[in-house]
Amino acid sequence: MKIAVIGGTGPQGRGLAYRLALAGHEVIIGSRDASRAADKAAEIAEAVRQTGLDAVSVGGDENLAAAGNAEHVLLAVPYDGHGELVASLAPALSGKIVVSCVNPLGFDEKGPFALDVADGSAAEEGQRLVPDARFVGAFHHVSAVNLWKHKGPLTEEDVLVCGDDDDANNIVADLAKAVTGHRGVIAGGLRLARELEPLTGVLISINKRHKVRSGVRIIGLD
Amino acid sequence: MKIAVIGGTGPQGRGLAYRLALAGHEVIIGSRDASRAADKAAEIAEAVRQTGLDAVSVGGDENLAAAGNAEHVLLAVPYDGHGELVASLAPALSGKIVVSCVNPLGFDEKGPFALDVADGSAAEEGQRLVPDARFVGAFHHVSAVNLWKHKGPLTEEDVLVCGDDDDANNIVADLAKAVTGHRGVIAGGLRLARELEPLTGVLISINKRHKVRSGVRIIGLD
Repeated sequence: MKIAVIGGTGPQGRGLAYRLALAGHEVIIGSRDASRAADKAAEIAEAVRQTGLDAVSVGGDENLAAAGNAEHVLLAVPYDGHGELVASLAPALSGKIVVSCVNPLGFDEKGPFALDVADGSAAEEGQRLVPDARFVGAFHHVSAVNLWKHKGPLTEEDVLVCGDDDDANNIVADLAKAVTGHRGVIAGGLRLARELEPLTGVLISINKRHKVRSGVRIIGLD
Repeated sequence: MKIAVIGGTGPQGRGLAYRLALAGHEVIIGSRDASRAADKAAEIAEAVRQTGLDAVSVGGDENLAAAGNAEHVLLAVPYDGHGELVASLAPALSGKIVVSCVNPLGFDEKGPFALDVADGSAAEEGQRLVPDARFVGAFHHVSAVNLWKHKGPLTEEDVLVCGDDDDANNIVADLAKAVTGHRGVIAGGLRLARELEPLTGVLISINKRHKVRSGVRIIGLD
């Protein structure tokens, strides 16, 4: 698949773009600045080649062009400015699967906390702004460092998937194989992004307290 | 330890009381109705004896008396009526560790959803109502059916613990061994109950969709 990773110059986006490229997908890094996107794309392509893979396709472009040229779009951007960005990309997102990995979190002296989101979650906000895209929440909980540094698939963890369109959920659950080596767990409708997005704050708190890079596994599925 | 399980006549409370009694703790089932509490206590004690254990102490009493006679108190009650109940138990909770397993969830045609809680979470509501108790959120995610029916400890899952008092967190993390065979994972402060409580809704949605009894494991800790 040809996938744009909007926010692909940030750590989570870079890590996901790397894994998608490793799995043989064609990736376009999106950034506000096309030359930054191109630099990051070159860095990711080089990392893929260092694993011994020759056939690697990672390009970079300005956000709107990246989204427009892709089959599906992955949003790995900060929540700050999320609404404006999604609205500006609307023409390019129309009709596509949009994977939202956005975590609306704030930080204070007590650690991470969930920001108030009028729509309930960033994923639902995006869906409201682009009604004819198919928003799917996923990939919130995978450590950016593990995505980039860990050798091999992150087999111990699960990618949790939520969305209102079954076909889109299934495609994204399959896309999760690029990260974990196995299908993601479809949790239910897009509304569950209200719980999945801020769960990232719990993992960040665990990471800080236990000096680890944690992730989530759903047990009892087998 | 001598632990009161308020709401011990419900499925989650019964399951936790059973596991605590199996692990050798002295358990007092609390209910509005002392005779219902005594009946449930007898059922639980019999289930413990059937595993071959002779030394089992499970009693039943009216909520306030149960809480008053215990060293620590576990709240496994529905969110509906939670504030009034906690306020009524305040004199008996004072100075104690109060383990909150309360999940403020609603259900509609789309499945489970998080209820609006003015204090952010049931655990923080309880803490506000009884400031000199030490509230700790834990045991939200363990399947009531698995607690009651599964043979042996639920080794695959983690009990997530959150609270503002380190000593109380450690005691509750140790208490989790009664359920999983290993210490619970201290996630951070009590505020994280805002994420841990509604996460139960995600698990319920997964259970319905996949016809399983799911739970959570935090990976990357070892």
